[in-house]
Amino acid sequence: MIVDVSKKILIVGLGLLGGSYARVLKRFGFHISAITKEQSSIDYALNEGIIDEGSTQLDERIIGESDLVVFALYPHVFVEWIRENQNLLKSGAIITDVTGVKKSIVYKIQDMLRDDVEFIAAHPMAGRECSGVENSTDNMFAGANYIVTPTDKNTQQAINTCLELGRLLGFSNVTTLSPEEHDEMIGFLSQLTHCIAITLMTCNDKENMEKFTGDSFRDLTRIARINDLMWSELFVANKDALLNQMDMFINKFNELKSMLETEDIDGMRNMMRHSTQRRALFDKK
Amino acid sequence: MIVDVSKKILIVGLGLLGGSYARVLKRFGFHISAITKEQSSIDYALNEGIIDEGSTQLDERIIGESDLVVFALYPHVFVEWIRENQNLLKSGAIITDVTGVKKSIVYKIQDMLRDDVEFIAAHPMAGRECSGVENSTDNMFAGANYIVTPTDKNTQQAINTCLELGRLLGFSNVTTLSPEEHDEMIGFLSQLTHCIAITLMTCNDKENMEKFTGDSFRDLTRIARINDLMWSELFVANKDALLNQMDMFINKFNELKSMLETEDIDGMRNMMRHSTQRRALFDKK
Repeated sequence: MIVDVSKKILIVGLGLLGGSYARVLKRFGFHISAITKEQSSIDYALNEGIIDEGSTQLDERIIGESDLVVFALYPHVFVEWIRENQNLLKSGAIITDVTGVKKSIVYKIQDMLRDDVEFIAAHPMAGRECSGVENSTDNMFAGANYIVTPTDKNTQQAINTCLELGRLLGFSNVTTLSPEEHDEMIGFLSQLTHCIAITLMTCNDKENMEKFTGDSFRDLTRIARINDLMWSELFVANKDALLNQMDMFINKFNELKSMLETEDIDGMRNMMRHSTQRRALFDKK
Repeated sequence: MIVDVSKKILIVGLGLLGGSYARVLKRFGFHISAITKEQSSIDYALNEGIIDEGSTQLDERIIGESDLVVFALYPHVFVEWIRENQNLLKSGAIITDVTGVKKSIVYKIQDMLRDDVEFIAAHPMAGRECSGVENSTDNMFAGANYIVTPTDKNTQQAINTCLELGRLLGFSNVTTLSPEEHDEMIGFLSQLTHCIAITLMTCNDKENMEKFTGDSFRDLTRIARINDLMWSELFVANKDALLNQMDMFINKFNELKSMLETEDIDGMRNMMRHSTQRRALFDKK
């Protein structure tokens, strides 16, 4: 479906990600509309020519005409929107999202959704340390991953549409994972790293440390500047997988601590060699 | 003393740091000699014009003529060198070092050293992800910290000489700390961050993670490529301070984990706001 540019696309939540979706898709010739909280976001996007029309209200005509709807909202806002407004969606519409956690969202939405509308979930793994449609760009997705997380309820057609959307948006790696695989992976690579960064940043309040800080500490705490509203919600929404990753980390950290206590040099060197070898896999290609 | 370029400086251990010291100091006109393991390092340094003479042997004339000796060796090698060869040092010589831990080294060396030679310890907080005199540069120290760690046994003259050396080398921040303060600070800012990085890199061996890795994970594991011989020795040499920092980190990490388990959103948001505020202090000025 998506390759047919006569179809209409609606972005709900015109921020950094939603705005970047609009920018790229508009260039392909799709009709793009937006529903978002702030009139200033609509005005900016109209002025930039990245949407055709927009509203801060639940515009029934716009929603009812849209073939593909992208929800770029906080998880709980997305769930509430569907619960309250799904009756406005067009019969046969496909809806997708940008939510950073999947298991706690995907089944809930699919279970409550009308039978004549299909939700195929996706996670565009991209972002910047700023927000708002004003910071959106049309090249944010180069080099980034786009993960589609289908379930038994999804049709192959909707899955293909969502994969095609990721490729149109310019993601370098477009792939599928189950919601559970996705959440485990994101729990480790993204959420655990944020847990570590904020812990390191707050575990020692001694003054004047910054005078002696080098690159190592700065690297490990770059992401310690964090949107507390969004991340606390994402942590809870992925609670089980994240707790599991935190336990794995603590266990390994305690292993290292025991080796240091007993001055087990060989054990520490083995761990460091393992670390060095495994890190090589993660170099940017 | 150091400002008098008629004095002779000896570098023991001509690697990345020792070579960079030689490069900078040679430009000021000092007579620079080197004693190091590999003839190829001597040949390279002579060819580059960054030393005046060098030897792979314990050359008694070179050592006996040197007014300032910089030891750029592994901690235990440095201690053994002093134990076995201090009789070769010139009466009145000042010796210093580049060792990354202080308490376990400084008192030991000062206690065993002849009365007519003075050891003033220093830690040049600089390095690169490579080694060897071939990678030395004359601008490695711009933006970096140089910490002198005097004790009751040091004279003001030797402390001043060592501070002056740091400034000559081009360090941006030249300061003093007690050996204990230094080790606590380095335990937190440098050693704990390396412990975290190698733990994160080895706590989850699931395959294909690298396909989905973004900048956060790469930032937190850049230093997970680690010289296992050197770092295991440095960890043990700073065991007490590092274990203390590891405990502080674990306690805070467990606090976060408990808040996640009980879905204490307010508690997590407080910690994230604290983290965000504190990280701002550590931005590069």
